Amino acid sequence: MPDKLKPRIKETAAILWKVYALLTIIQVILLLIGGMNLFDSICHAFTTMPTGGFSTQNASIAQYQSTYFDTIFIIFMILAGINFTLHYQLLRGRPLAFWRDSECRFYLGLLLLLIAVVSFNTYGTVYETIGGSIRYSAFQVVSIITTTGFATADYLQWPAMSQLILLVCMFIGASAGSTGGGIKCLRVMLLIKYCYRELLSLVHPKSIAHIKIGGRRVPDDIIRSVIGFLFLYVGLFVICSILLAGLGVDFVTSIGAVASSIGNIGPGFGLVGPASNYADIPVLGKWLLAWCMLLGRLEIYTVIIFLAPEFWRK
Amino acid sequence: MPDKLKPRIKETAAILWKVYALLTIIQVILLLIGGMNLFDSICHAFTTMPTGGFSTQNASIAQYQSTYFDTIFIIFMILAGINFTLHYQLLRGRPLAFWRDSECRFYLGLLLLLIAVVSFNTYGTVYETIGGSIRYSAFQVVSIITTTGFATADYLQWPAMSQLILLVCMFIGASAGSTGGGIKCLRVMLLIKYCYRELLSLVHPKSIAHIKIGGRRVPDDIIRSVIGFLFLYVGLFVICSILLAGLGVDFVTSIGAVASSIGNIGPGFGLVGPASNYADIPVLGKWLLAWCMLLGRLEIYTVIIFLAPEFWRK
Repeated sequence: MPDKLKPRIKETAAILWKVYALLTIIQVILLLIGGMNLFDSICHAFTTMPTGGFSTQNASIAQYQSTYFDTIFIIFMILAGINFTLHYQLLRGRPLAFWRDSECRFYLGLLLLLIAVVSFNTYGTVYETIGGSIRYSAFQVVSIITTTGFATADYLQWPAMSQLILLVCMFIGASAGSTGGGIKCLRVMLLIKYCYRELLSLVHPKSIAHIKIGGRRVPDDIIRSVIGFLFLYVGLFVICSILLAGLGVDFVTSIGAVASSIGNIGPGFGLVGPASNYADIPVLGKWLLAWCMLLGRLEIYTVIIFLAPEFWRK
Repeated sequence: MPDKLKPRIKETAAILWKVYALLTIIQVILLLIGGMNLFDSICHAFTTMPTGGFSTQNASIAQYQSTYFDTIFIIFMILAGINFTLHYQLLRGRPLAFWRDSECRFYLGLLLLLIAVVSFNTYGTVYETIGGSIRYSAFQVVSIITTTGFATADYLQWPAMSQLILLVCMFIGASAGSTGGGIKCLRVMLLIKYCYRELLSLVHPKSIAHIKIGGRRVPDDIIRSVIGFLFLYVGLFVICSILLAGLGVDFVTSIGAVASSIGNIGPGFGLVGPASNYADIPVLGKWLLAWCMLLGRLEIYTVIIFLAPEFWRK
């Protein structure tokens, strides 16, 4: 549900294109200032804004061991996970654009909460300084929830709580209207409000409460479509994890690889952690995961409808 | 949504009580015939029909190493997972009662499918004969999906695919109106029909399809309530798994222990597998899991409404 910026789709596309280009250029310049060479700066900026997460370095961003670079990447990954229409509003001189959008508040608030919990959990167990635990936790939480997939730490060495939070982040994803994948914050918000409404209706059985996001009532057919999407997303995750395990992949790797693929993240858990890659997954499993990536990126419905015979009959 | 058997709740309760008692007595007799002593026979029957899963033996039913006992337990666990009103109909001389009920068809069909897949997956990897793999797979799938929790095999030694299927079984649970826990087949059916309807509405956007179960249209408020329940169930599972991991429990054990507790099963994964117990879970974790068991058994809403200040204000 992105806001209409301009009456014509062509103008809207041009605006989003400019925002995208501007952010990429700023990131390239900031990386150059930090001492990264031009080629690597461009490559990394080209893979931050689309939340792609490919690096020119085998060790990803961990290669640089630089607080400056980590900070730049954290900021630009967060920006890439925000609805692009909000960037445009900000550039047009509305400094409170991020704050006024309920999804953006939810996204930034959730990020702060999860970074705080993971920092607390890794402090003393993995990192000896609170600064270090915040730096690495923030990078990894942001990288996973925006579905970018860059790494500065091997989170498989982190305590189980932090790993489970990262697994949940793979599902949540970034904002609607951003380049990120996953379920998306807007849908998660709708889900929470849905449950809240049901609990409320137990106390007040005769009340008819509408679900509102950003002050506007969400139409029933949108709610139904989002709920269908959520169930299909989780259902696909479950079925594909079982199928991948059926090809001889272990329990944790199967869950992690499928969650990571449907969410378009990159690193997963087990054999496909951030310090490893998908080379050891059997060939059929790679096909399955490629299929998962496609389903996740095209938000499931598009792919399934494409396969329906009824769609072609028309 | 159980069918009304008799106009008065007192008579209905008396009928269900009689069905329950009759099945328990038959199971005691069959166990006695197999050579189990009276005390153990009564104890095991008393914990099969309520899908409790406590055994007088440390090794659970594996202690007996008897195909006869395994078969008796499989049959009675399956019966305990069926809506008790159907047993009554069967006893009243309607031999097709099980088949006429759409939830029962789903439950029995799903059981057959999962047993077939797990048998195929464990044959050759864990069990050398096809008979052995069917015997142990059937027992474990039935025991977990009915949320009984008896064990004849340490399924942690099984391939990852079978373990993931058992994890999914913990969520599915038995039929509504049975003694089993979990989400229940009726809700899973509703969920599948919900997704199917959404996919259908993509091809026919103007169609208004109602969700029917057993030929009857499911009212919208029931659908909303079921969906709220499903999300709360999964949400609680996620949050409680993270909290349990925060107490120092590992990744797989956290997931397995919480799934098993909310579903009222018993054995989980990792440290709390079927050959082990919950002794090593930290004290706070035990409190958390006890809370999960209560939430699962009372179907979440009941407990949450009990905690709402608005409920008490009335």
